[in-house]
Amino acid sequence: MTCSFSDPEHYREAIKSLPAPDQVAMDAARLRQGQLTKPPGSLGRLEEIAIWIAGWQGREKPQLNSPQCLIFAGNHGVAAQGVSAFPSEVTAQMVGNFSAGGAAINQLTRAGGINLDVIALELDRPTQDFTAQAAMTVQETLTAMQTGADAIPDDADILLLGEMGIANTTSAAAIALACLGGKAVDWVGPGTGLDADGINRKVEVVEQSVGFHSNLKDGLSILSHLGGRELAAIAGAVLEARHRSIPVLLDGYISTASVLPLYKDNPDILDHCLISHRSQEPGHQRILAKTGLEPILDLGLRLGEGSGAATAFPVIRAAVEVHSGMATFAEAGVSEG
Amino acid sequence: MTCSFSDPEHYREAIKSLPAPDQVAMDAARLRQGQLTKPPGSLGRLEEIAIWIAGWQGREKPQLNSPQCLIFAGNHGVAAQGVSAFPSEVTAQMVGNFSAGGAAINQLTRAGGINLDVIALELDRPTQDFTAQAAMTVQETLTAMQTGADAIPDDADILLLGEMGIANTTSAAAIALACLGGKAVDWVGPGTGLDADGINRKVEVVEQSVGFHSNLKDGLSILSHLGGRELAAIAGAVLEARHRSIPVLLDGYISTASVLPLYKDNPDILDHCLISHRSQEPGHQRILAKTGLEPILDLGLRLGEGSGAATAFPVIRAAVEVHSGMATFAEAGVSEG
Repeated sequence: MTCSFSDPEHYREAIKSLPAPDQVAMDAARLRQGQLTKPPGSLGRLEEIAIWIAGWQGREKPQLNSPQCLIFAGNHGVAAQGVSAFPSEVTAQMVGNFSAGGAAINQLTRAGGINLDVIALELDRPTQDFTAQAAMTVQETLTAMQTGADAIPDDADILLLGEMGIANTTSAAAIALACLGGKAVDWVGPGTGLDADGINRKVEVVEQSVGFHSNLKDGLSILSHLGGRELAAIAGAVLEARHRSIPVLLDGYISTASVLPLYKDNPDILDHCLISHRSQEPGHQRILAKTGLEPILDLGLRLGEGSGAATAFPVIRAAVEVHSGMATFAEAGVSEG
Repeated sequence: MTCSFSDPEHYREAIKSLPAPDQVAMDAARLRQGQLTKPPGSLGRLEEIAIWIAGWQGREKPQLNSPQCLIFAGNHGVAAQGVSAFPSEVTAQMVGNFSAGGAAINQLTRAGGINLDVIALELDRPTQDFTAQAAMTVQETLTAMQTGADAIPDDADILLLGEMGIANTTSAAAIALACLGGKAVDWVGPGTGLDADGINRKVEVVEQSVGFHSNLKDGLSILSHLGGRELAAIAGAVLEARHRSIPVLLDGYISTASVLPLYKDNPDILDHCLISHRSQEPGHQRILAKTGLEPILDLGLRLGEGSGAATAFPVIRAAVEVHSGMATFAEAGVSEG
C-alpha cells in the first residue's frame, strides 16, 4: 500500500496503522545466522542488522539491489534571524553542486553503489519565519510529505534520507524541543559553523519560537509550525517506506528530528529506521538517548545531505552479503565448537 | 625498499629506521580539504583519514586501486591446553572455507572490492606449547615474518591484515601481557566462545606462560617465545608495509597484538596503522587505551579473519573518494560561509 497525504485524516490513518516486521522471516534469518561458519554472535551488530532487514523486507535472505538515497532541499524564513553561518542562496547553489556531481554525497553514493535523487522543494518560496507565525500551513506540510512519499522509486529496497537547507538545524532544534521537551540550549549547536555569539542568538530564536507555538498538541501541527518543506518530505518518505516495508537509513540531526513529529504521534515509527551515525551536532546525541536508538557509525560527521547514511550503507551491505553468501558449517565441512 | 628478515640484525635495522609520512603531501591534502564544498571539518574523521593516507601514499590525492587483504593462518601447540572452544583442525578447515569462498571474509572482500589472499603457514607443524618452552625459534619467527612481508603484492595501495588460528587469542593475550604489563586476567577473553571455566583455565595458561618466559627483554624475543606463525607474519607484513609506504588497516585483537612486539621495539610502528574496529574481545580495548589508538568501527565484532578490516574499508574508501572527487567552492560557484 502507499500513502496519500491529501488531508490530515489520511495522515492520521497512516500513522496509526503501522505495519510490523515479518516475524517468520526474522526467525528464519536468525536460525540461518546460527548455522554460518563463524562462532555464534561473532559478527555482532552485522548479525542484528541482517535479521532486522530480513524482517522488514519479509524474506530470510534480504537483498540490496536498488539502494536509494533521496536528498530533499528547502529554504527557511527563519534564516532571516541570522541563525546560520551561510547565506540562504547556498541551498540552491548546493542543489546545483549535487546535480553537477561535485558534492560529498555524489562521491559517497557513487562509491557505495547507491542511486541518488535530489528533490528541491520550492526553494524560491521559503517557509515563513516561525519566530512569530507558522512556518507552513497544514496543507503545505502535507504537500511536502506527499512529495517525499512519491519520490521513493518502485524498486527501492532500502532508503537513505538526507537534506539540504540553510537554517534547518534551527528548525530541527525547535521540533526536538517541542516533541521531546527540555530547554532550547539542549537542542542548539553550531550547525554549519556558528561561533558562540551565533549559537546564543540561535538559542534565543528557538526558545522564542517554541514559546510562541506552545499550544501545539500533535506531531503534524509541530511539523507545520516549526518545520520546513525538506523536513516534511523526509517525514512523508519515512511513513511511506513503512507502509511499503522498505527499511530506512536516517542521516544525522535534521533527518532524525524530521521523524520526531511522527514519533510523537506513534513511537513505533522508528522501528523500520536505523540511525546511520552519531552526528557531531550535540542535539542528535540527545535524540538518540531519548529514543534509545544506537547509531552505526560515530565519525564526527556533521555535514548532512545524506553523507552519514551513505557512509554507513556499506556496513548494511556487509551485513546482508555475509548473511546471504556465507556457507553453513554443514556446507563447508567445518567442525562446530 | 623492502625488508629482509634473514637474521635478527636485519630486523633490528628495519624496526629502528621507520620512514615518516610525507609532510608536503599531508599539507597539500589538508589545504584541499579546506577548499571543498562543505563546512570546514564537517566530515570529521573522514577528513583526517584522507589526510593521513595522503601522507603515507605521498600524494595530495591518494588512490585505492588495489586494496589487498591478507589472511595468515597458523596452528598453536598451546591449543593442547584446552584454551579454545574449537578443535585445532578447524584452522585448516577454515582455510579450505576461505578457498571455497564460504567464509565471512569472502563476502566482505567481494562486497568491498578488496583482493584477498590466504596464506597458510605450516599448519601441520604447530608451534611448540609455550607454557614450558619457546613457541618458535628466532629463525622460525623471522621466516614467518618474511612470509608475511613477501605476501604483499607489488601494486597494493592499502593493506588489510587478518588471521585464523585456533588458540591464537591465548598467544595474543600472552604477548599483550609481556609487552604492556598488567595481569593475565586483563588480557584474556572468551575468544571464539569459552565459558567461565574455560576463561579461568586460559588465564592460568597465560599467567604460567608469561611467568615461565619472564626474562624476555625485546619484541622479537617475545614474538618468538609467545607468538605464532600467523602473528609473526602479520608483524612482518606491517614492518614491510611501512618501508614501502603502504597504509595498513589492522583487524581486531590478534592482529593488533601481533604488532605489539614491534611497538615494544619502536612505538612509531603504529603510525601507518589504523585500527579498523573495537573488538568485542576485552583485551583489544585495553590495547587501544594503552596505545592511544581510536578504532573506526565499534560493532561488537569478534570473528577475526580480517572481517573487521574489510567491514571498515568502505569508510576509508569513502574518505578518499570524497577527498579526491569533490568540487571546491570556486569550482562549484558556492558561497563560502
